[in-house]
Amino acid sequence: MDKEIRRLELIRRLKKKNLSLEDYISGIKSGNVIILSKAITLLESKKREDQDLAEEILRCLPTIDLQSKRIGISGSPGAGKSSIIEKLGLHYHSIKRKIAILTIDPSSRISGGSILGDKTRMELLSRKDNVFIRPTASGSTLGGVGDRTRETIQLCEAAGYDTIFIETVGVGQSEIAVHSMTDMFVLLMLPGAGDELQGIKKGIVEIADLIAINKSDIVDKSLVTQTEREYKNALHILQPREDGWSPFVVKCSAIAPNGINELIDAIDQYFKYQCEEERLLKKRAEQSLQYFQESVEAKIDYFLKYDSSFRKLFVDLNDKINSGILPRQEALQIIFFKLANKLNKN
Amino acid sequence: MDKEIRRLELIRRLKKKNLSLEDYISGIKSGNVIILSKAITLLESKKREDQDLAEEILRCLPTIDLQSKRIGISGSPGAGKSSIIEKLGLHYHSIKRKIAILTIDPSSRISGGSILGDKTRMELLSRKDNVFIRPTASGSTLGGVGDRTRETIQLCEAAGYDTIFIETVGVGQSEIAVHSMTDMFVLLMLPGAGDELQGIKKGIVEIADLIAINKSDIVDKSLVTQTEREYKNALHILQPREDGWSPFVVKCSAIAPNGINELIDAIDQYFKYQCEEERLLKKRAEQSLQYFQESVEAKIDYFLKYDSSFRKLFVDLNDKINSGILPRQEALQIIFFKLANKLNKN
Repeated sequence: MDKEIRRLELIRRLKKKNLSLEDYISGIKSGNVIILSKAITLLESKKREDQDLAEEILRCLPTIDLQSKRIGISGSPGAGKSSIIEKLGLHYHSIKRKIAILTIDPSSRISGGSILGDKTRMELLSRKDNVFIRPTASGSTLGGVGDRTRETIQLCEAAGYDTIFIETVGVGQSEIAVHSMTDMFVLLMLPGAGDELQGIKKGIVEIADLIAINKSDIVDKSLVTQTEREYKNALHILQPREDGWSPFVVKCSAIAPNGINELIDAIDQYFKYQCEEERLLKKRAEQSLQYFQESVEAKIDYFLKYDSSFRKLFVDLNDKINSGILPRQEALQIIFFKLANKLNKN
Repeated sequence: MDKEIRRLELIRRLKKKNLSLEDYISGIKSGNVIILSKAITLLESKKREDQDLAEEILRCLPTIDLQSKRIGISGSPGAGKSSIIEKLGLHYHSIKRKIAILTIDPSSRISGGSILGDKTRMELLSRKDNVFIRPTASGSTLGGVGDRTRETIQLCEAAGYDTIFIETVGVGQSEIAVHSMTDMFVLLMLPGAGDELQGIKKGIVEIADLIAINKSDIVDKSLVTQTEREYKNALHILQPREDGWSPFVVKCSAIAPNGINELIDAIDQYFKYQCEEERLLKKRAEQSLQYFQESVEAKIDYFLKYDSSFRKLFVDLNDKINSGILPRQEALQIIFFKLANKLNKN
């Protein structure tokens, strides 16, 4: 009953906004940028009804495109991420791919200013057709409960964007999240300074599929060669990867420009390799399962934060465990039944 | 029925080992070190029946002691953690407290050698009565599914140890875990090198309740003063803490020795503060809830890893979500019902 009422409410609300579920679906499928943007805004909204609508939209869109390339690009501030993305974007644009660029800066909040900022930083690219640039929700942690970057990728792909760049600052948490939702993770480094001084954590070097040393034209060549050797050595020390890929180290400069073709080559080789033996298919299937597990945990977290009766039950059960009245196992069982019932009522 | 069979099996096994549940309970309560060690070994065992028995033991032991002090001590290798713990331990021993020291080194596996190693490193202290030194389970990540450090603390407290030190290497993940199970988190630093060069992450400085600059006798005094000032400044920049505590920075040397009394003073002041207005009580209640939530997540993780029928259901539901057949909400509901049913059968 409850569900039926919510469904009717949904339809009513859509009519009021003059944009029906069907409008969203057909708009996105036809690549309408305004409707795509509106849908992403729904996704990022804190309002329950907006999120429900976004969920419906996602559910009605085709399954994710296996022809797409999802590329995460990370590096410390000043490493030249935007310039490199612009060069790569212009290349992929020239071979008729549709480019979406999602920028994530966990430290700054989204504003008109920062959108403008991104577009200014990618001046040539942003003026092209078939290029969509958008900062994604920050504020809350990336990879956390509120994060919808993964769904934003799905919307962009449904709108026909087949080359998705996700730009992040290399400070840790957000890289792991970006790695879990992209096909390829590119780490941009500067020559000279080791990753410690560049503020890059060792763990991030370990998940890189490709390391690019940018700005290699503005410093001493021997320093560039030394940095290249250091990263090659660092990558060799690591355990061989399960997928068998050996990450490349590439020197380049977005400004000169040089090395860009080598960078593109390395990216293309990586995707060629991943498309053999269904590696990419397997990788995405694993990512999807991982995400499902996270969404189970996020749901529990949501009820703990926002549902006072659930929280009360949780505290009571914990007290009973601690005083030895109730075995932990039985408490967990009660928790899971309660969660299932809560979702039934919703 | 199933439960009854398992209970009988438990009793049979206990008889075989000539150590009944009651033996464990009375042994631990009377402070028998061998039985305490055996119980910790049960906790850390990968065998289901050992874990069940450990769970029963924990359930029959009294609620955790609010008179105890749980102190986490972290710092990079070479910072002098063991020497400082020895000095602190000798002091608390002299005022008739019972000391337990749990050492955690995520990078090394437990062996007879490393236990011996720990005892050698705390030569004076390890020879005393009422001092219990033990490395805790490593191998798997601390704070992960397999980690039982929190329960080990409970066992030690039940055995009458009222001053618990938990020693870790300051590399990130494990500190957050230790912070979540101790009353006080002490960070040991060396003079001079900033935390980046000492391999300490900024986040760890932020959770410290006290920063001690060790080995302050073997370097230039001005360097020590400068380091002290840097950390004081760093702590001042941080947001005021919810509990109102302003972390101290203390200079000391375990070898000289000097500054040890100041260090002990700072620790005592911290506990005095935390015992006012039930702060410690509240802190432990929050930690306990946090742990309960983690154990819910760990249970899901356990079924995903080891229960093939649950994993199959999980994969199927995820496929249905991805192909738009099933709303995510309904899939989550099925998952929670299944989890509750699984626990019912166990």
